[in-house]
Amino acid sequence: MEKIVRLNMTKREIIEQAMPRTYRNFAGRALTSKIISTEVPASCHPLGQKNKFVIATGMFAGTAFPCSGRISVGGKSPLTGGIKESNAGGTAGWKLSRLGIKAIIIEGLPPKDEDLFLLKLNGDKNELIKAGELRRFGTYKLAKELRNRYGENIGIIAIGPAGEMMLSAAGVAVTDLEGNPCDYAGRGGMGAVLGSKKIKAIIIDDKNSEKEFMFHDRKEFIRISKSVAEKLIGEKKILRKYGTSVEINESNALGYLPTKNFRKGQFDGIDKISGETMHAIIQQRGGMHSAPCMPGCPIGCKQTYLDNKGKYLTSGLEYETIALLGSNCCIDDLDAIAKMARLCDDYGLDTMEMGVAIGVAMEAGLLSFGDADGAISLLEKIHDGTPLGRIIGNGAEVTGKVFGIQRVPAVKGQSLAAYDPRGNKGMGVTYMSSPMGADHTAGCVIPGRTGFDTTKQYNLLEPYGQEELSLDLQIMAAAIDSMGICFFIGLNPDMLHTLADLHRARYGLNTTFDDIVKLGKKVLEMEHRFNLAAGIVPLHHLPDFFEEEPLIPHQTVFNVPFKEIFKAMRKKINISNFSSK
Amino acid sequence: MEKIVRLNMTKREIIEQAMPRTYRNFAGRALTSKIISTEVPASCHPLGQKNKFVIATGMFAGTAFPCSGRISVGGKSPLTGGIKESNAGGTAGWKLSRLGIKAIIIEGLPPKDEDLFLLKLNGDKNELIKAGELRRFGTYKLAKELRNRYGENIGIIAIGPAGEMMLSAAGVAVTDLEGNPCDYAGRGGMGAVLGSKKIKAIIIDDKNSEKEFMFHDRKEFIRISKSVAEKLIGEKKILRKYGTSVEINESNALGYLPTKNFRKGQFDGIDKISGETMHAIIQQRGGMHSAPCMPGCPIGCKQTYLDNKGKYLTSGLEYETIALLGSNCCIDDLDAIAKMARLCDDYGLDTMEMGVAIGVAMEAGLLSFGDADGAISLLEKIHDGTPLGRIIGNGAEVTGKVFGIQRVPAVKGQSLAAYDPRGNKGMGVTYMSSPMGADHTAGCVIPGRTGFDTTKQYNLLEPYGQEELSLDLQIMAAAIDSMGICFFIGLNPDMLHTLADLHRARYGLNTTFDDIVKLGKKVLEMEHRFNLAAGIVPLHHLPDFFEEEPLIPHQTVFNVPFKEIFKAMRKKINISNFSSK
Repeated sequence: MEKIVRLNMTKREIIEQAMPRTYRNFAGRALTSKIISTEVPASCHPLGQKNKFVIATGMFAGTAFPCSGRISVGGKSPLTGGIKESNAGGTAGWKLSRLGIKAIIIEGLPPKDEDLFLLKLNGDKNELIKAGELRRFGTYKLAKELRNRYGENIGIIAIGPAGEMMLSAAGVAVTDLEGNPCDYAGRGGMGAVLGSKKIKAIIIDDKNSEKEFMFHDRKEFIRISKSVAEKLIGEKKILRKYGTSVEINESNALGYLPTKNFRKGQFDGIDKISGETMHAIIQQRGGMHSAPCMPGCPIGCKQTYLDNKGKYLTSGLEYETIALLGSNCCIDDLDAIAKMARLCDDYGLDTMEMGVAIGVAMEAGLLSFGDADGAISLLEKIHDGTPLGRIIGNGAEVTGKVFGIQRVPAVKGQSLAAYDPRGNKGMGVTYMSSPMGADHTAGCVIPGRTGFDTTKQYNLLEPYGQEELSLDLQIMAAAIDSMGICFFIGLNPDMLHTLADLHRARYGLNTTFDDIVKLGKKVLEMEHRFNLAAGIVPLHHLPDFFEEEPLIPHQTVFNVPFKEIFKAMRKKINISNFSSK
Repeated sequence: MEKIVRLNMTKREIIEQAMPRTYRNFAGRALTSKIISTEVPASCHPLGQKNKFVIATGMFAGTAFPCSGRISVGGKSPLTGGIKESNAGGTAGWKLSRLGIKAIIIEGLPPKDEDLFLLKLNGDKNELIKAGELRRFGTYKLAKELRNRYGENIGIIAIGPAGEMMLSAAGVAVTDLEGNPCDYAGRGGMGAVLGSKKIKAIIIDDKNSEKEFMFHDRKEFIRISKSVAEKLIGEKKILRKYGTSVEINESNALGYLPTKNFRKGQFDGIDKISGETMHAIIQQRGGMHSAPCMPGCPIGCKQTYLDNKGKYLTSGLEYETIALLGSNCCIDDLDAIAKMARLCDDYGLDTMEMGVAIGVAMEAGLLSFGDADGAISLLEKIHDGTPLGRIIGNGAEVTGKVFGIQRVPAVKGQSLAAYDPRGNKGMGVTYMSSPMGADHTAGCVIPGRTGFDTTKQYNLLEPYGQEELSLDLQIMAAAIDSMGICFFIGLNPDMLHTLADLHRARYGLNTTFDDIVKLGKKVLEMEHRFNLAAGIVPLHHLPDFFEEEPLIPHQTVFNVPFKEIFKAMRKKINISNFSSK
């Protein structure tokens, strides 16, 4: 029987409950957004007692289907003020599912002077453990300490000092198969929400669990899983070899790699920060590559970066991190970027929000573009909790506001991802229209992807049809996120057909492709509805400069008409009640 | 012929134009909001080249009608992100009207490294004068310098260092009859907008002007003006004697005086900060009281506060300033409060936003409640431009966000005024539903005021009917603001009847009471429409704690139902297209 673990921090009380009927058909992002929409008043303060911190596993977590163990982390975001779902890999989803836990809801608020706690789940017993001694622990030291205490095999969901400080750019770390806390539900400040509840970490111990999963048609389920896994092994060789950082060169070649606070789409120092260079360094220094972050992943895009003395630095050096901490800040030193990524992981900060915030600080003249030492020292100030550190730790928009800067690449309070919206116009539409703020994973437009009509191709430099492409991908992403699956398995209609088949094999319902599409739409509608009640309209403009300054080298501005995006939103999802001006 | 002076800072070019037909029936707030709605894209960055800084005089500026010389200052607000009109007394409105200038529009943006400028208007010649030497001048030193240069009789509209620094709480100072820069269009950060245009001051020299005003029926106009003036002389004796600070005792007695970051409605140190105490100090030290801020004001609510050595400190020590810098911060020392007010005036900051921001900083533990020296030193940090100073200078909401504080008394990015919304529930409705953010002047509910139905009385501690009362007063305020008249002449239906008569006598149109009401509604609708296009819905909740923590001493929470306010908005003004959840 699948259950919810509900922890009330006002009463310091844990209860387990069977999945309520109204939540029963939901999982992953659909479940976190459903719980937030149902239980959290949209107008509440994100750090207050009415907000909830929710974790949900996917529909196929714990099964043999590849990459199905992601967790969704949800709540009202202190960064955007709207609903947030941020998902992460690592081992937590797998382990939670083995304990039969579908969701964790942390609600209420302990007294202001209360100490930190750990929430420990092991199937038989759920414990709330005082943990004041772990205050200010970085996530690495924390993970090591907790594995010493509770065993090497536990899964950990944790915050660093940034979450304790309730900084809006604080993320939630999840440990990977090596026990390193560098799988991140990074975006939207969900670490600050967990920090407001005074939970330093959730420990998942599944060693005594022998969970049996039920299948309507186990054979068919295994057949589909195997076939998808084989396909991924064959198709994802480059991703396995280089990790997501392989995109650095591509994005530079296509001219949408954020450079100098989104001034240019190509970076002079490209050769020093490319995925190929990173791969060579990793090989030379003996770092591990091509590792999975969770059980049952045949892709294995994780790359372990060592410093020049061969010491482990991070395994979270992804495309977004390198681009936003690197080219966006004109920093062309991969060791420095890796150091910054490590600091972010350890402090518990979103590397993306930090890259953009540092770019804005450079814009404000606090340090120069390209100043890697200055950027590292700025990150250290966040940890120290100085006023300047707290400004940066609250992200790009707050940094821009405090320093009176208008060149701030953010939408709905959240920094843009590593795709300049002039060079990748479909991604621009996603930034503007996603309920999640400027979040690339919410509708990830890259060359070659199509919408539901797979015969239609798009030129990302041209405005035509980008609204349709983005919206279709947003719907697909919402569906896949709701299944708790890594979208690297394929963000396309074919995959949705496969997932419908998979759903039938698992649950024996007459699930069709259309049902999966409907699920994606429903999730987006629910999220936009929450946002509107929180005072956030569904469609925002990009910052002025994207419509005014031509992007180098393409000399193109962002020019997808606002009205067309609005019309597409109305057509594709049921959004009403907001102005179209 | 009435005209607009249009200054384009991109081209550094001044043109004069006749009032365009579409603007012709507008003045004051209606005119600034009309120009902003017409010429400024709602989505633009408030500090960017597309925003405009607009000043408009009222419908009767320069005439004998009492208190008719206020100016409206408008633009897209860096504080709220929405449309803003903030109005001020002083001599500028009178002098502009004598030059035949109905409005000033400052648009475009000079290069980033461009120096500061003065805009000098004298009827024959409009000049843009380089003024780099005035950088960082406080408004007092600036006013003195400009009067030395250009004559004692000039009117000045200026910013202090806070405006140059583009802080979101920077206001716009206007000189009074004594030449002191302490009449303020304080709210909404309009000083930052003028700072972004690199205009340090606007100088209005009307000494060569012999403007003749046209009247449809001069005799009748004079008769009405005289009768209103006589009535004000008789009725406003207490306001004349004590200034607005007389409200301190009233508000404390009624239990809605903000105390300790809006924890309580009564202050232990009340006797030390009351208007009566202030009056005694002023008398004892020989400060001037009962002075008008503009020509033709028979009320004269201005009080000049000297320090304990008899030296001039400020004539801007108003109710809001004393309450928010004083009781709200638990500071019971009137000399210290006056010193803080002086610093705000001199730096060019909104005293209200500062009082609330300092209260939030106290909440965050940066200094203790009651620490006057600490509060003064915090204000000095703003002037120094330290990161902490810039945080505070960006207002209460940013301060709360940076320090992870949820107890932030602000709505739509703007701090509340000095009326706790649990003790004055009608004012709470104004905070929630005004297009201006938490602005008391936008619909000022105080005991005894009624809506359009003057037979209906309201208990401000009870929720019943507050939505109607607030909305009616918002409509009246929008109408009176659009005439450029100080609402101290009377915020009630009788006064709107008088203003209709006055309008007929001036312009010879068949203006009725209904027309004046329609004007108020139209202005509100226009402003909400702009806001919605900027992504801001018309109705916001108050911060959670007002609905959760009972106010001492009344033990009441804010409980006017959101749905009722929404319904009243729909009924009273034509607001559609937003969710009611």
